[in-house]
Amino acid sequence: MCEANAYLIKEGSEILIMESVDIVEPEGSDTWRIVDIFGDQKYIKGRIKGMNLVDHKIIFEVLPD
Amino acid sequence: MCEANAYLIKEGSEILIMESVDIVEPEGSDTWRIVDIFGDQKYIKGRIKGMNLVDHKIIFEVLPD
Repeated sequence: MCEANAYLIKEGSEILIMESVDIVEPEGSDTWRIVDIFGDQKYIKGRIKGMNLVDHKIIFEVLPD
Repeated sequence: MCEANAYLIKEGSEILIMESVDIVEPEGSDTWRIVDIFGDQKYIKGRIKGMNLVDHKIIFEVLPD
């Protein structure tokens, strides 16, 4: 399976927010909807900082105010 | 390997712009840099419409003017 793990950078640390992410979609201008292979979903307010698919990583960061 | 193929939606069709994408990173506010597993890179002006990692797809679309 080629899903990835989603992390959120918070105060300089990478926090795992969801494993086995399949779908990533924008939801409005500053939120992303992520869905794992089991169909569970989360909404993340922030932006994509980067993805490294070979390492199975999607990294989000909170937008500065 | 768990890389994906990148597509751009143009006039309603999905056009393959890069295979075997490993890295996806924002480059400024409206551009993405994508790098394949061989190190070749492209810049895409637009936004991410959606990703389906199990299907190995990343879909970009051009922003409306």
